[in-house]
Formats: sequence, C-alpha cells, structure tokens
Amino acid sequence: MTPLELRHQVRSGQFRQPTSGYCGAYAQANLVILPQAQADDFLRFCQRNPRACPLLAVGEPGQWNLAALGADMDLRSDVPGYNVYRAGQLSAQPLTLHEIWRDDLVVFAIGCSFSFEQMLMDAGIALRHVEQCKNVAMYRSNIPNIAAGPFGGNMVVSMRPMKARDAIRAIQITSRFPAVHGAPVHLGDPALIGIADLDQPDYGDAVAVAADELPVFWACGVTPQEALRGAALPLVITHQPGYMLVTDIPNASLAAF
Amino acid sequence: MTPLELRHQVRSGQFRQPTSGYCGAYAQANLVILPQAQADDFLRFCQRNPRACPLLAVGEPGQWNLAALGADMDLRSDVPGYNVYRAGQLSAQPLTLHEIWRDDLVVFAIGCSFSFEQMLMDAGIALRHVEQCKNVAMYRSNIPNIAAGPFGGNMVVSMRPMKARDAIRAIQITSRFPAVHGAPVHLGDPALIGIADLDQPDYGDAVAVAADELPVFWACGVTPQEALRGAALPLVITHQPGYMLVTDIPNASLAAF
Repeated sequence: MTPLELRHQVRSGQFRQPTSGYCGAYAQANLVILPQAQADDFLRFCQRNPRACPLLAVGEPGQWNLAALGADMDLRSDVPGYNVYRAGQLSAQPLTLHEIWRDDLVVFAIGCSFSFEQMLMDAGIALRHVEQCKNVAMYRSNIPNIAAGPFGGNMVVSMRPMKARDAIRAIQITSRFPAVHGAPVHLGDPALIGIADLDQPDYGDAVAVAADELPVFWACGVTPQEALRGAALPLVITHQPGYMLVTDIPNASLAAF
Repeated sequence: MTPLELRHQVRSGQFRQPTSGYCGAYAQANLVILPQAQADDFLRFCQRNPRACPLLAVGEPGQWNLAALGADMDLRSDVPGYNVYRAGQLSAQPLTLHEIWRDDLVVFAIGCSFSFEQMLMDAGIALRHVEQCKNVAMYRSNIPNIAAGPFGGNMVVSMRPMKARDAIRAIQITSRFPAVHGAPVHLGDPALIGIADLDQPDYGDAVAVAADELPVFWACGVTPQEALRGAALPLVITHQPGYMLVTDIPNASLAAF
C-alpha cells in the first residue's frame, strides 16, 4: 500500500487504526491545527524548539491540501483519528474535520520518531519497545522549552535502551535526520534531566534497561502537545496519538547529509 | 609558525620538544617505520583496525618524502624524537635516521587524536586533561584487534570525561573525522570494555570523572604501538610519544562530510 492508497482508505473510512507499521519507508507526521490568531506564536515556538517540534510543513490559513506533504491530500479527512480540544479540554473525536473547518485554520505537520526508528532498525539496531510490541516510554524532563507567546513548559523525551556501541551508532544515524527529532538530547543518568524513575513513564510503556545498556533520550513530539495543553487555547485540533498523518515524503529523503 | 617552518626547525635541531599545541590547525601524525618484510602485514593490520590505526599515508619502500603529508618533507629528520626498537626492545633514540636508513624501510603515518581534540575545543567542548595540562588517560581495553600476521592484541583507548550533551556533540564531531580515530568506541561503564579502574590508566594521567559526566572512550594510536611491541620485530622505528610528525594537512580537510 502506498501512502496515497492508505490516505484514500482513511478518507473513505476503511482505515481506522494506528498507523505504526504502515508505509515504513515514508515519514509519518504529528498534526497540529490552530486558528491563525495563535498560529504565529506556535510557529515561533516550533522554530525555537526544533528538537521537539521539527516542522515538516506549515500551511497557509485555511489550506487543507499541502503539496509538500503529499499528493491529493485532504487534511480534513486523511488522518485516521482527530482530537478536538476547546479551552484545553478534549471536546470531540470526529471522523473528519469537514463540519468544523474554518478559513483561518493553520496546519502544522511535525516530524515523528517513527522515521528515525525505521532508520535505526534498518541499521540493525534492535528497539526493545518494538520487539515487545509496546508504545515507546516517554517522560517529562526538566529541560525547559524556549517559550513563545502562551507556549512553554518542559521537553518530553522518549527513551530507548541501548548498548553503548548501538547508542553511538544511533547518535550518528539520527543526527542525519533533524526533521524527525535528530540526535538524542541525553543519555545515561535519567536524574540529570529530572527523571526520577524510568519504571514510571509519563506516557507509553516502561521497558527494562539492562545492566550493560544506557538509556538514550530523544526529544519527543508529545512536547508540543503538552505546550498546547498548557496554553488552553479556544480551539486546537490534533491527530489522535498513534493515528498519524502518513506522508509521501521518503524517510531517506530527510537525511541532512 | 607554519608546519613547514616547524619541520625545518626540527631538521636543523632547533626544535626538540613535544609538538602538542603547535600548528593546531594541521594534522599531526604517529609515525611507524618498518622493513618491507613486515610492512604488508602491518598495512593489513591497519586496514582491519581503522579506528585505532587510521592511515594518513603509506610510503613506497625506501621513500622518506611523502608529498601526501607535506612539502619538502624528510621523514629521516623532521620528527623531533625517534625511538628505534630492535627485537622488541628500545635500542636507540637518534636525532635523525640518516645513519640507519635503508632502502627497504616503509613509512606509515597514522592519524592522531590531537586533530579531533582541536575540533572539539573549537566547538566549545572543554577537555579536562588539556585544562589540567596532563597527558590524556589511556587504558588497555578487552576489545580485540583483528589480527594480521604477527600483529594482534587488544585496542588501547583514550578517555575524556564529558557531560551527556557534550558527549553527544563529540560523537557528531568526531564521526566526521574517521582519518583521526573517528567516533568513540564506547561510553559509560568502563567495566564493559575491560577497564577495572579509571584512576589507574595504563598510559598517561588520570583525570576525575564527575558524577554528572560519562567517560567517553576513543580508539587510541597507542594500539599499533602495543601491537608492534607484541610482534617483537627485528627493527621498528617510531616517533617518541608526544613528539609527532607535523603535517601540512589541515584538520578541517579531513572531514568526511
């Protein structure tokens, strides 16, 4: 199935499930949709925090078809699950956005760790949460985001345990992909970035870190979600966690060098 | 002072000291000179262990002027200190090699960590041994070299303590310079590569590793020295530790990407 075929299945209502494992060679994206009144602040927030909020594309107000992300795309219908927040609270999970679309809504597509995880696995680096069919473990760190307007808070990080040799290789590989979170932000002692207990992730599922492994931490796309929640805006639309936008962008094309 | 000016001072006997801190923008090299009878095995050893033995240049038998390393070079006189080993034992420290030069001697120039240390410092990463005016701490690891002929043994590693953020950046920077040892081979728990006590280096000087730091380990140019000693060849000539060959190769030109 090509990304376009998958999006067509989503659009027709045939595909309603998490997108992990589909179209693995192509970038999946976190979706954020905001009224223009808040969009400029959010764009500056992303620009200032590129590890957590690497932008693949930003639309014009009202634009729901971003050619930079793929052909024949309708962002009002091509994501298999939407969350609509009003005043910071989840208010609806519509199947499409057609009824609530407005001419002032601005689309942000933010790179996703699925892309670099694919590159790591292609390089022979095993990912424990994938092996164990779990969601990756995510933690609130004490690394402050650089604020913009109402958006601030701390960085949320994802953790993958690795032997030192694989951690070094993973740093090399992910450094090539700044558009999908790039290099790790920390490795080793979790307490140094404010994580008290690796067994108690704030999101996702815990995995064991063996005695001969290091926990390796990447900036996580949940960071902007938390920043948006903290801002308690009148209206925010996102994808549902795990139900990503599947783009036509080959992961390999995102390599910076 | 340019590298050529420094070499001329060495050749004339004016410069007889360690080369650290001189001509910092240019690569310094470890020197190994072997009879042709052993040179092929040693070349294969270097090819198989590129992290520890990254070759900048290899001469033809009898060749003492390698244009790849610099202009107007005479490797029989342009290194400020030579060690001559016979049957594995240090037998002489001549000021020049003119009296013992032979037409079957083959020169190997092996990249040196001074080059990547300069790149790290240029990037604002402090190196504790430099700050404390010490020699870098070096340890025999349990990482086996890939053997070739009489050459084998284990990798010798150098260690630099860094905060995780600097370690990640150092991995990115040194990965660009495979010709001068490249990326680290390990970081974190020293016991995992057979090092029992960081306070007891096998070469160089110990430095403290703070609680918020990781020890970061790179393959070290002492590795081929140990492999040569283990082989106990009839004749080996090297530079004296710290008294390196200063080449005309700009460090920046060694970036692989």
